[in-house]
Amino acid sequence: MSEAHVDLMVISGPNLDLLGEREPAIYGSATLDDVVAVARHRASALGLSLDHLQSNHEGDLIEAVHAARHAARAIIINAGALSHTSWALHDALKTFDGPVVELHLSNPAAREPFRHLSVIAPASDGVIAGFGPLGYELAVDAAARLLGTDA
Amino acid sequence: MSEAHVDLMVISGPNLDLLGEREPAIYGSATLDDVVAVARHRASALGLSLDHLQSNHEGDLIEAVHAARHAARAIIINAGALSHTSWALHDALKTFDGPVVELHLSNPAAREPFRHLSVIAPASDGVIAGFGPLGYELAVDAAARLLGTDA
Amino acid sequence: MSEAHVDLMVISGPNLDLLGEREPAIYGSATLDDVVAVARHRASALGLSLDHLQSNHEGDLIEAVHAARHAARAIIINAGALSHTSWALHDALKTFDGPVVELHLSNPAAREPFRHLSVIAPASDGVIAGFGPLGYELAVDAAARLLGTDA
Amino acid sequence: MSEAHVDLMVISGPNLDLLGEREPAIYGSATLDDVVAVARHRASALGLSLDHLQSNHEGDLIEAVHAARHAARAIIINAGALSHTSWALHDALKTFDGPVVELHLSNPAAREPFRHLSVIAPASDGVIAGFGPLGYELAVDAAARLLGTDA
Amino acid sequence: MSEAHVDLMVISGPNLDLLGEREPAIYGSATLDDVVAVARHRASALGLSLDHLQSNHEGDLIEAVHAARHAARAIIINAGALSHTSWALHDALKTFDGPVVELHLSNPAAREPFRHLSVIAPASDGVIAGFGPLGYELAVDAAARLLGTDA
Amino acid sequence: MSEAHVDLMVISGPNLDLLGEREPAIYGSATLDDVVAVARHRASALGLSLDHLQSNHEGDLIEAVHAARHAARAIIINAGALSHTSWALHDALKTFDGPVVELHLSNPAAREPFRHLSVIAPASDGVIAGFGPLGYELAVDAAARLLGTDA
Amino acid sequence: MSEAHVDLMVISGPNLDLLGEREPAIYGSATLDDVVAVARHRASALGLSLDHLQSNHEGDLIEAVHAARHAARAIIINAGALSHTSWALHDALKTFDGPVVELHLSNPAAREPFRHLSVIAPASDGVIAGFGPLGYELAVDAAARLLGTDA
Amino acid sequence: MSEAHVDLMVISGPNLDLLGEREPAIYGSATLDDVVAVARHRASALGLSLDHLQSNHEGDLIEAVHAARHAARAIIINAGALSHTSWALHDALKTFDGPVVELHLSNPAAREPFRHLSVIAPASDGVIAGFGPLGYELAVDAAARLLGTDA
Amino acid sequence: MSEAHVDLMVISGPNLDLLGEREPAIYGSATLDDVVAVARHRASALGLSLDHLQSNHEGDLIEAVHAARHAARAIIINAGALSHTSWALHDALKTFDGPVVELHLSNPAAREPFRHLSVIAPASDGVIAGFGPLGYELAVDAAARLLGTDA
Amino acid sequence: MSEAHVDLMVISGPNLDLLGEREPAIYGSATLDDVVAVARHRASALGLSLDHLQSNHEGDLIEAVHAARHAARAIIINAGALSHTSWALHDALKTFDGPVVELHLSNPAAREPFRHLSVIAPASDGVIAGFGPLGYELAVDAAARLLGTDA
Amino acid sequence: MSEAHVDLMVISGPNLDLLGEREPAIYGSATLDDVVAVARHRASALGLSLDHLQSNHEGDLIEAVHAARHAARAIIINAGALSHTSWALHDALKTFDGPVVELHLSNPAAREPFRHLSVIAPASDGVIAGFGPLGYELAVDAAARLLGTDA
Amino acid sequence: MSEAHVDLMVISGPNLDLLGEREPAIYGSATLDDVVAVARHRASALGLSLDHLQSNHEGDLIEAVHAARHAARAIIINAGALSHTSWALHDALKTFDGPVVELHLSNPAAREPFRHLSVIAPASDGVIAGFGPLGYELAVDAAARLLGTDA
Repeated sequence: MSEAHVDLMVISGPNLDLLGEREPAIYGSATLDDVVAVARHRASALGLSLDHLQSNHEGDLIEAVHAARHAARAIIINAGALSHTSWALHDALKTFDGPVVELHLSNPAAREPFRHLSVIAPASDGVIAGFGPLGYELAVDAAARLLGTDA
Repeated sequence: MSEAHVDLMVISGPNLDLLGEREPAIYGSATLDDVVAVARHRASALGLSLDHLQSNHEGDLIEAVHAARHAARAIIINAGALSHTSWALHDALKTFDGPVVELHLSNPAAREPFRHLSVIAPASDGVIAGFGPLGYELAVDAAARLLGTDA
Repeated sequence: MSEAHVDLMVISGPNLDLLGEREPAIYGSATLDDVVAVARHRASALGLSLDHLQSNHEGDLIEAVHAARHAARAIIINAGALSHTSWALHDALKTFDGPVVELHLSNPAAREPFRHLSVIAPASDGVIAGFGPLGYELAVDAAARLLGTDA
Repeated sequence: MSEAHVDLMVISGPNLDLLGEREPAIYGSATLDDVVAVARHRASALGLSLDHLQSNHEGDLIEAVHAARHAARAIIINAGALSHTSWALHDALKTFDGPVVELHLSNPAAREPFRHLSVIAPASDGVIAGFGPLGYELAVDAAARLLGTDA
Repeated sequence: MSEAHVDLMVISGPNLDLLGEREPAIYGSATLDDVVAVARHRASALGLSLDHLQSNHEGDLIEAVHAARHAARAIIINAGALSHTSWALHDALKTFDGPVVELHLSNPAAREPFRHLSVIAPASDGVIAGFGPLGYELAVDAAARLLGTDA
Repeated sequence: MSEAHVDLMVISGPNLDLLGEREPAIYGSATLDDVVAVARHRASALGLSLDHLQSNHEGDLIEAVHAARHAARAIIINAGALSHTSWALHDALKTFDGPVVELHLSNPAAREPFRHLSVIAPASDGVIAGFGPLGYELAVDAAARLLGTDA
Repeated sequence: MSEAHVDLMVISGPNLDLLGEREPAIYGSATLDDVVAVARHRASALGLSLDHLQSNHEGDLIEAVHAARHAARAIIINAGALSHTSWALHDALKTFDGPVVELHLSNPAAREPFRHLSVIAPASDGVIAGFGPLGYELAVDAAARLLGTDA
Repeated sequence: MSEAHVDLMVISGPNLDLLGEREPAIYGSATLDDVVAVARHRASALGLSLDHLQSNHEGDLIEAVHAARHAARAIIINAGALSHTSWALHDALKTFDGPVVELHLSNPAAREPFRHLSVIAPASDGVIAGFGPLGYELAVDAAARLLGTDA
Repeated sequence: MSEAHVDLMVISGPNLDLLGEREPAIYGSATLDDVVAVARHRASALGLSLDHLQSNHEGDLIEAVHAARHAARAIIINAGALSHTSWALHDALKTFDGPVVELHLSNPAAREPFRHLSVIAPASDGVIAGFGPLGYELAVDAAARLLGTDA
Repeated sequence: MSEAHVDLMVISGPNLDLLGEREPAIYGSATLDDVVAVARHRASALGLSLDHLQSNHEGDLIEAVHAARHAARAIIINAGALSHTSWALHDALKTFDGPVVELHLSNPAAREPFRHLSVIAPASDGVIAGFGPLGYELAVDAAARLLGTDA
Repeated sequence: MSEAHVDLMVISGPNLDLLGEREPAIYGSATLDDVVAVARHRASALGLSLDHLQSNHEGDLIEAVHAARHAARAIIINAGALSHTSWALHDALKTFDGPVVELHLSNPAAREPFRHLSVIAPASDGVIAGFGPLGYELAVDAAARLLGTDA
Repeated sequence: MSEAHVDLMVISGPNLDLLGEREPAIYGSATLDDVVAVARHRASALGLSLDHLQSNHEGDLIEAVHAARHAARAIIINAGALSHTSWALHDALKTFDGPVVELHLSNPAAREPFRHLSVIAPASDGVIAGFGPLGYELAVDAAARLLGTDA
């Protein structure tokens, strides 16, 4: 992640590195890099810079949040399955002063019961879920509004 | 609700008629009419028509969904507290073939436990929650994308 | 509902107005009117009169039960999803002195968990579930027997 | 409900229209009108005006609370079985600034388990339960005290 | 059980051998044999043959279902208290290709909590409960309809 | 407690001896003695005598109930936190033939979950909660009515 | 089991046939036959006859209860692990008019959680548990008292 | 309690002082003193001495157990409703080296759910429940056997 | 089952007699006899003898375990759906001194919730599940290793 | 307890009077008096006075807390098993303005499930558990620090 | 892990690096390397290649599964305690097309409750548990069979 | 972490690296380094050496415990939010032979429900919680005592 200040820190958790490769019939063939590029383009159109980090390690995600405390104005986080178990990530997000947008590709509430509750939700301002890869772009719009940027 | 065909049917449930009047410090002074007007403007910019209905009666919301089955291409629904108890509304939404966007002004997952589970979620494609009145506009963008309209 | 006295009051709840239109491959193309007509014919063969009311409003169903207290000898009720949540309807049915037959098109016990418990069951004498539209006719037979009419 | 300003708005929910007719051995033969008349008389003795609305429709009760926001100083609400399920009514009561007295004819804590928890209680200041029709009069006294009127 | 092919295999579980002897004031004095005779007569009127087996042994009931796989067109089963615990019986019924009608003399949903859930329900097409010994005859009608026989 | 016969036995449980001293901004500066004096005055106006006992010991409260069996016509009991755990007190109250009014200063249903259920409620006729120290006086009115005394 | 009338029918369930062979250090080396002989001797001293049946088959136990309905004055039943699951046995015991004594060698409440609840307890008059093989003799005493025989 | 050494310490908890006075139709008119006298007589016949203490105070019961640690060979305890909540009493009983017999007049497993679990059971060797006042005598027999005294 | 001593006692529970006949597309057309023959062949190659019993009766399975106590060195048990409910079978297995291998054709943890917990697992040394009919052969290998036989 | 002002009020609950006598192999032979003497010595070294009270009566513990409200600067409380059930003690501690240190000899979280939750914890500032009798001294250190005394 | 294609990818999770060092009396003194060597030898005898990775980091395990998607034909995974909490690992395994064998040294179902449910089980084909280090070799056999290799 | 032997291994988990920076009004401005320096100083005064490791990665914490098995005499662990979910860390701590002190800055029992249970507690000897950064020093004292060092 860039050391420089950035407007939006986008964080993607476990298994999201498989995007585009897994079930392309459903999510399309765009990779995570492709999706982030589109989101960055959208951010740019709104006058916002955007950094992105993906990791399958909970510790890396926590540290990305820590870094964002001094380096970013808002966080967009798609924590994957860790959304439902990682209170440590929840505690990290609680220390972030700016807006936090929780993001999911699918609609967790319509899947297995373990996905019905998000433990990071109490540390998030808003949620966008179920819109597939397009959700990254919607989350940029949402974060921009929370920052008072006219989308 | 207009009898004519429409692209987006927006449905607001119990207590949303108080928007703008209740806790203006938090949600601003815009009324539900104001918010819907902004959403309609956004839809229009995307080439989409929009109808809106608000009711405090579960039966009215169910019937609005029934009517939308033949009259609308997508549904955006902010069912208020009925989101957490109305399986009858869930059953109605299940009969709708187009995309359904579940909308909440606040982030239910960060509030009282009874709001943590949405019984209409299994009948929804996606969720947008926690962005206040701006959520109506984001939901229009999301629905537009699900309909294949370029937002 | 007719003000006049009737033998069987048949009450249908939310979403049953879509019968015949929804999933015709499963339930056939008969509408609720068609099904009620068959049930009325069956009742007639047993020497019984039959009235029917459908509503998507819990309040209407409660009031139909109230009206039946003085106007009907038995109630057949298919409360749809309200079967699983409406204690108010349960309380109304408890005030009815004659037999109450609970009716479901599908077999709730074989569907989602929220349908496994019926809150109106403690106020019902018997249940008929899982026989599709034919259940209305079986319920007439059952109610007739509970009334001591030879089916 | 009167459009005019009133001191006490009394709201009765589902099945309370059967009062006097159902189980007279227990509750006596006084109808809801009779009971409200006694309560109004008591209010009058305390220098307070009183309006009353009964409905079997949750939506009507919500709207009565909405109307009371500008028209009444206190609410007395006997929501019947909706007390245990209607979070929408809870949300409506939460928007009311004055005192709210929750009322029950019977003692819900001594009946079936579903009646042991009231979802409107968190939106109420106090509860009076188990005193039968006399509870309406006690609730007037209680509301009067909460309003600072000498009972 | 007859080795010959039969239309309806009726299976009665534990304690049903006491029918007619236990609580005759409620269920009448008809024995299980009497009740089955009436059901057989009803089946005969519909052009259907009927076999019956009663056992207090879960294993016998399972084997009756196994035998029915090649010998019967439909199963009517009143499994008594095993309805609420016997997943082994559930598994047996799942292997049966024809319609399965679950039958109860009383209405389990209105009795003790352990009777509120039936573990064989997910393996049944429909349920008839609460009509006493008459339920056997209603179940014959229901099974006949599921088999496409005009009742 | 007086050995003599009395109309109303008022029993206050753990921590109520701190009334007036704890959070005076909320409950005022009236002590338990002050509050009981007002209640006794109200009882007197209704022609009723009143005795009061406060104890932080569950055993004392049980024995006060035992004594009331022969010495009092009605019990008003504010059992404090023991309301939620003392089945022994519940059993004692069950042996009392006259009316029992359960009293709480605050509204337990609006506080922590452990206060949502009262184990003495099944042994009480009615409940008055949430009206602060004034509740003692309301409870006298309520008990008077249950005793058939005109309040 | 003897067809003749008997005073006490003692029924032992699954795995009790291993008594004396299993963990003799704890329960001693007396076999079930030995234990029953002692119990019969005790019954005899009280002027009571005693029959005994052991089976590992739930169906046999149910049928032993059925037989006892006309043949025995009281039942002593040690149902082993079936005590915790067999609602069918519970239903059988419910049909028995005389006293039922539930017996356990060990103290189920002090063992694994699944043994903490007995489903046959609601059909029993009393319980004797934790006294090892001596419990059979104590149960004879207890049953004798319930029958009004002087022990 | 006598300071002297004793064979059996019998402890009775809350509300048992009402024995004989409460529901004499069920339990007879024998008082707790009468019942203990019979038990003492039975103990005497077995060559055992017996002391008894009744208290409505949990602390007294705990201290009676403490005293018994050096003064008694076995404990018989009927803790009333405290059986279901007092882990402090459980902890006290755990420090007693000799046999502990848990006693109940009624059969808790057949009453309200809160009585289904005993928290002192894990500290008891055996349980005798459901035999009314006669249980005290049976418990003496049982304790005698656990002490190796020939009953 | 052979009375003679044997190395491996293989026990199959309810519905396993349908193997080969039910869902042959999934499990192949091999019958239980075929599968056992292959397992016996494998055992023979390891120098071990093998007996097999299938029953749909819980009591038979319990008795097969009892018999194995003196006749077999290890038990392989596929208890079917009884795995999830039969504490009586659990108790029987607990009395067996040698190794116990729990076997399932399918992977219960990946099926309905009622199959997620095995009540016989606490009495088993190891589990083999999800390998279809081949599991019988793997279980022979596993048991052989637990017996110290070189597989 | 001394009426005079004191720095640290140490309160010990049920069964702690047995310290030194029970399981000396684990906790040593020091009595509660010995342990308190060591703690008082430690307090003295820190310039703090210390009073101690032990009782097996919940009411005494509550009253010790009440007394401490005006007489002590900090409370150290080892409530024994009452820690897990006494909401009344919780309510008392909530009224204390100074620091409260919850103390346990053993580590409740590593023992039976009923000890995993402490109901007085929400009224405590900190917890020290699992260090045996030495915990009293550690608690003095901890309380000293919370009072700003240099330990 | 080798980049080259391999038949079996064996993955060991947290704490398995201590094998051989921890509790050698139970598991023997073979280290994880020793055990894997034996498993590799067994695989080799079946004509299969085998790679192994151990990590105490959830992220590493997830990435090993990702790598196996293109590099291995089957996965054998002993996820240690992560088996019971890591939905992220579950999601990773769900993306693997070949067979997955879940492996445990001990029998989780016979240990603490938190080990009774495996969250990776729904993503596994089969389970082998309770056979100690030998389980690795059995898992190779099982995987070989699932791959159609003759073991 | 130093490879050399050490007396006390102090391990800090996720988010503790933010100490001093987060909520300084509550915890002061001392950083984790400062706090550890004070703790080391305290250890030194007791003649004990101390090493410290902080990581946001569960795997690192597990490996620190593994390393401590041969390198440290006692462990002090503040696992942050992982205390409530990481059974893998629990399993690691279980392999450590020396004393383990569980440490928390805040009092988890007084915060959100998810913090009420610690899954590492069953692997800890004692707990110190709620004393803020001072807890590190208290934990050194406690560990010293458990090691038999005179604090």
